[in-house]
Amino acid sequence: MESIKNYIETNRDRFIEELFGLIRIPSVSASESSKADMVRAAEYIRDLMAANGADQATVYATPGNPIVYGEKMVDPSLPTILVYGHYDVMPAEPLEKWTSKPFEPEIRDGKIWARGADDDKGQLFMHLKAFEMMNATGTLACNVKFMIEGEEEAGSASIAGFCAEYSETLRSDVILVSDTTMISPEIPSITSGLRGLSYIQVEVEGPDHDLHSGIYGGAVVNPCNALCDIIARLKDSDGRVTIPGFYDNVHVPSDAERAKMAERPFDPEKYRKSVGVDALAVEKGFSTLESTGIRPTLDVNGIWGGYTGEGAKTILPAKASAKISMRLVPYQKAGDIAELAINHIKSLAPAGVKVSAEYLHGGEAYVSPLDTPEYLAAEKAYTEIFGRKPIPIRSGGSIPIISTFEKILGVKSILMGFGLESDAIHSPNENYPLENLFAGMRAIPLYFKYYAELKKKG
Amino acid sequence: MESIKNYIETNRDRFIEELFGLIRIPSVSASESSKADMVRAAEYIRDLMAANGADQATVYATPGNPIVYGEKMVDPSLPTILVYGHYDVMPAEPLEKWTSKPFEPEIRDGKIWARGADDDKGQLFMHLKAFEMMNATGTLACNVKFMIEGEEEAGSASIAGFCAEYSETLRSDVILVSDTTMISPEIPSITSGLRGLSYIQVEVEGPDHDLHSGIYGGAVVNPCNALCDIIARLKDSDGRVTIPGFYDNVHVPSDAERAKMAERPFDPEKYRKSVGVDALAVEKGFSTLESTGIRPTLDVNGIWGGYTGEGAKTILPAKASAKISMRLVPYQKAGDIAELAINHIKSLAPAGVKVSAEYLHGGEAYVSPLDTPEYLAAEKAYTEIFGRKPIPIRSGGSIPIISTFEKILGVKSILMGFGLESDAIHSPNENYPLENLFAGMRAIPLYFKYYAELKKKG
Repeated sequence: MESIKNYIETNRDRFIEELFGLIRIPSVSASESSKADMVRAAEYIRDLMAANGADQATVYATPGNPIVYGEKMVDPSLPTILVYGHYDVMPAEPLEKWTSKPFEPEIRDGKIWARGADDDKGQLFMHLKAFEMMNATGTLACNVKFMIEGEEEAGSASIAGFCAEYSETLRSDVILVSDTTMISPEIPSITSGLRGLSYIQVEVEGPDHDLHSGIYGGAVVNPCNALCDIIARLKDSDGRVTIPGFYDNVHVPSDAERAKMAERPFDPEKYRKSVGVDALAVEKGFSTLESTGIRPTLDVNGIWGGYTGEGAKTILPAKASAKISMRLVPYQKAGDIAELAINHIKSLAPAGVKVSAEYLHGGEAYVSPLDTPEYLAAEKAYTEIFGRKPIPIRSGGSIPIISTFEKILGVKSILMGFGLESDAIHSPNENYPLENLFAGMRAIPLYFKYYAELKKKG
Repeated sequence: MESIKNYIETNRDRFIEELFGLIRIPSVSASESSKADMVRAAEYIRDLMAANGADQATVYATPGNPIVYGEKMVDPSLPTILVYGHYDVMPAEPLEKWTSKPFEPEIRDGKIWARGADDDKGQLFMHLKAFEMMNATGTLACNVKFMIEGEEEAGSASIAGFCAEYSETLRSDVILVSDTTMISPEIPSITSGLRGLSYIQVEVEGPDHDLHSGIYGGAVVNPCNALCDIIARLKDSDGRVTIPGFYDNVHVPSDAERAKMAERPFDPEKYRKSVGVDALAVEKGFSTLESTGIRPTLDVNGIWGGYTGEGAKTILPAKASAKISMRLVPYQKAGDIAELAINHIKSLAPAGVKVSAEYLHGGEAYVSPLDTPEYLAAEKAYTEIFGRKPIPIRSGGSIPIISTFEKILGVKSILMGFGLESDAIHSPNENYPLENLFAGMRAIPLYFKYYAELKKKG
């Protein structure tokens, strides 16, 4: 694959400028005001696909943001790889925490700094360029299809319908996704499992307007206090979620499996320092990696109510709200868990306030087997690029759509991610090392090559 | 006092236009951007004082917002009344809840609708006009001094220093304050007690940046969850505050006193409906009025942390904050209570987060005796205007500066308020009935008259 390496060297500056063009489009799917930017981002990707050798490349309208589909069919007898990615990004707030502007990408210290530099513009771009290079060097060993959506960070509401409608078009042998991390280039890893997600929003309503906290304090239930009481009762002091039925379907891996997972190199002290806290707090009876990898959990993602400006306003607020998400493990159903949570939260409402809750979005957990041609091709590609066999890891993050793909399209996904945990995705100062960007561009053609070989042997 | 009544009739439109001019200045003391408006409001009041017959009227600069001082000395042998009020107002947010704009006063249904219509621009304005009328009709029976500040809604940080510096200038026999409510014109009342206030802000810091809630959730302490846990532990299920030492100095009135207070007409059902809740929640063992009048309490005034925009952002937030205030009763010291609260809150911090808390402001509770010339003059004035002897009531609200006046100037205050609980002070759609505005303008000259008589008899 010397030709690929040379191609990258020759086209490096153009590649970076193309990626920067995509990043500069502030395609934040959580914001209703970004609709025009979503279309711009989709068309940008479509144009790259077409320019890079696709037989066809189309922007499909959906009830939400558009989906870009493209394909190149080399030979029907070859295996077909469906590449999935997303061009939407998380909101960039809080803006004041960024060193450089989130939608004006910069290279510093060998990294690209911008919202979407990694998640997922940077990672999906590797596939577009790998595709260009395989075409240019005549080494495209599989048929390829692309499905790039614009709602991943906001619930992927439209893609299930798209998959159902175009299941024939999307027919493939494996779905390849680069939207996860690896431990490091020195200790490469492949995500073999993802947690599911169930995301709800809770609202506590008290008096019909903000009251004077002096005149009414002591007689009227305060929605902020009530919300805190409710949230405090959702987890116990062992770090376990107290929602009745929450653990009913939780899959607990065997002791042997847990022992194998524990072989993964992990330095809790380094991990603790990387997030800047003085102590970690895991679920009782489980290690740090188990608590984020194989155990479900519950987090408040946002909370607000009453007066939050400068100074002191003495009100008893009319309302308080919170966004609460639960990470799920295999066999927990996102919708069922949301229902259990909502019912439990409502049952905790004291007299004097009204509590309502809404299921915003979710998806099931996913686990990939490690002995299939789909996984082994990735293992070989990583081994060749990084000089070491990758470790399969179970990640705490969720890509809910992965389990949806399996349900609707009947195809397994391989999570060939090249990000690092230090990339600060979803946070200020998101970044993506150029080393990883180019390693990914080189690994993907190897995946195509080994997958074609392994399937042939198969 | 027929002359006063006629004077109001003749000058009614001008009076309203003068008050509207004051209300139109958005003098929000909690906002750092309102500095110029604070000065404008102070100068507006100074000009009214001067035009209405003051010997002198001056705007004094302070480290915070200016204080307006004015006086008219009729005769050194007469008693001197010091009128206190404040020209600053609470923030008007949430703006979308207002029927008409907060700083564009309107008259509808016989009421003035605007931020500050009652608290305290409307109520202090009654004193300015009573002063004008007593001067114009030659009936000014006492010397009068005015001290009108601009920081009452934000902690009155500058006025204690002002009182200490100008204690000689401010020498008086009684301080008259109209910044409270009465039950109704049919059931007049005078506030004889106020709760104190201790207002703190709490910050819980976790990881040094927002984390991906999937990757880290389950291993890193979530500051929003931790803040909820802490707040949930500040009150128990009986509605009692759990901060150690909080009740140590609480004065519990005797059974006889409580029985007398219970004679006040009060309809809990009407009260409940007026705030729009399906149930009240009072401290165990105390009535609704006792819970807001003679018992201390704790309320969250505001809470915020993490993602609060539209849609679902899957972060484990770096930080969460809350504004928490405690209402105090006689013998609780605001500063001591803040210290107890801050220490307790810090002691509840779990490993993995840093908790800090700051005392924003506060003041002691206040109780007025009911058998002094100062109180009896007010009782007579109300009786004459409303046709019924006013009931002394203990209010849950706080005017922390009242106890400061007693400490620094050695003078008791009389809380001759003419507002109604339905005036929605501190809330959207604040209003002040014209009936109360003009009743106040008529009652104040009677107070001057009766106070001079009672002091003479003394």
